This record gives sequence, C-alpha cells and structure tokens, in this order.
Amino acid sequence: MARIAIDMDGVMADTSQQYINWYANRYGQTIDINSLVGLPETEGFPAGKDVIRSFLYEPGFFRTKPVIKDCQEVVKALFDKHDVFIVSAAMEFPQSLVEKLDWLKEHFPFIGWERIVFCGSKTIVHADYMIDDHVKNLQSFKGEPLMFTAPHNVNISGYKRVNSWEEVGQILL
Amino acid sequence: MARIAIDMDGVMADTSQQYINWYANRYGQTIDINSLVGLPETEGFPAGKDVIRSFLYEPGFFRTKPVIKDCQEVVKALFDKHDVFIVSAAMEFPQSLVEKLDWLKEHFPFIGWERIVFCGSKTIVHADYMIDDHVKNLQSFKGEPLMFTAPHNVNISGYKRVNSWEEVGQILL
Repeated sequence: MARIAIDMDGVMADTSQQYINWYANRYGQTIDINSLVGLPETEGFPAGKDVIRSFLYEPGFFRTKPVIKDCQEVVKALFDKHDVFIVSAAMEFPQSLVEKLDWLKEHFPFIGWERIVFCGSKTIVHADYMIDDHVKNLQSFKGEPLMFTAPHNVNISGYKRVNSWEEVGQILL
Repeated sequence: MARIAIDMDGVMADTSQQYINWYANRYGQTIDINSLVGLPETEGFPAGKDVIRSFLYEPGFFRTKPVIKDCQEVVKALFDKHDVFIVSAAMEFPQSLVEKLDWLKEHFPFIGWERIVFCGSKTIVHADYMIDDHVKNLQSFKGEPLMFTAPHNVNISGYKRVNSWEEVGQILL
C-alpha cells in the first residue's frame, strides 16, 4: 500500500477544456485544444491571458470543470488499494475552496473529508507518489513524481509521465 | 531553519474561551474555564455536548475566536526565522474554511496563502515540528511533536509540552 497525493486541477478536473468552454461562452469562439499545446496554461486565447486568468475568480469556474476521462473509475480503485489524498493548491483562490469541495462531493462521493488537502505550497506534503501537472509542485517532492500530461507541460522533460488515467492505473493498480 | 507546522484551533485560536463565550451568550451562564480542565473538548457545559458541538456549525464561530496570548508576536518571529506552515484540520467543517482564512487575514496578515494548509487527516504533513493540542494529530507525526496545553489535554502524557506561546518561543526562537 502506497501513499498517493493526487492533484485536482489539470489532473482530475479538466482545466484546459474549462478555459475553452468559458471562452466560447464569453466570446463565441471555440479554441482548438491542439492550438494550446506547449503554451503556458493561460495563453493561446485571442483575448489575452489576463482575461483568461480572470475566469479563475469567477463564481462557478471551479465548480463546473469537466472530469477528466477515466478519472472516477481509477481514483476509486486507487482508494480501495492505497492510502490516497487529494491535494489541491486551492489557497490562491479562496472562493474556489467550497466549489472544489462541492465538485468532489458530486463526482467523487466516496472521498471523505479526512482525505482532502487544500494548500498553497505543496512542499509540506509527504507521500510515495505525487500525480500533478505542474513542475512547481513536483520539483520539491521527495517521493516519486508522476507528471500528468496537460497541454501546458508537454515540452517539460525529466519527469516520468502519465498521459491518461488509464496509464495511472497501469502503474499503480 | 526548521519546518514547523502550527495548528489553528486550540493553539492559535482559543477554542475553549470561544465555547465559553458562545455558551454565555446563548444561556446567560458563564462557565469557569477551570471546570473544563481534564474534560473532553465539548464536555463540561450543563446543556450537554451536542449543543456545544452544534456551535461548530454556526456562522461566525470560527471567525470570531479570540487569539491566544502572545501568539501573534511569536508566530511572526517564527515566520522570520523558520519555514512555517499553518496546518488546520478544517475539512470536517466546510463552512469554517472561509472563516478561518478571514481570521488569519485579520490577526496574522503576514501569513501568505502559500503557507496555509487545510486538511482532514494530518498524516500527510511532513515537518520537523508540529505544534498541536490533539493527540490524534501528533501521534502519527514523524518529526518532533509539541503538545500545546489546552483544558482537554492536561491528563495526556508522553508528549513534550508547551504551555504557552512564550514557551514555544523559548524552544524555537
């Protein structure tokens, strides 16, 4: 049994797709996700990154993110087998705290409150594995980091990668 | 420089005094804090522990807790010298999340969001020291636990104790 720390945004919740959805709703233009590949997370939208970043402060943005494919099934299986924590750097966006809890309750009702961690810096988190899409979270991690592939991180090397929840399952189940 | 995890309730925020305050406000009876010594945290009030526990779910309970004596000065000095995190098991009471953030912002404006951790189980927290008033948080801690004395924990032995923030300063500053 291993202790596994799982990130939310970009790993369980589809942040890129949510940016595309909110952008389409606001500007009537659907951005092709392939055009975001290799760009920083809030870039690649014609209206500019400040507009995209402002979505993060709007009510509902975190609450309505789509669930990434196969995440529910694999996370459930990981909970049955391992010592799993959901670890989200939510503190930068205080209004997201309750939305994230509600999102987890809707899509992952089997996750108890004991297993949820909202933090700022993840340097204080101790586990055997950390699944995350951001280098800033993985680089100080003392266990085995697994970089969950997202459009913004495709050009980063030096980390073992998981490209899907199916691949997470292959490694950890 | 050491990494220090500091609990909120019962360590920075005076939970016992807040129970006494809310009880007095509700029932018109001021309970002597000395009568709570040695009892579990929600016991010792004539109306019964279910009533006391219900305070935890009322708006404002966490937001208006008194700050424990000398805490602001010593925590500020710890932040200047060490790698400090505020680690609160807030997840059991979701409505407390925003209240706790606002409480920290009011009384400890120097604490950035990167340094705040709201969790359920603290077993995932890794640090050199943990200052906490509850055995359930200290017992699985791999660093050096420091039990902050509170009325409910006076009969617990086996932990190095700090009886005040002045004593915390003597050990860690």
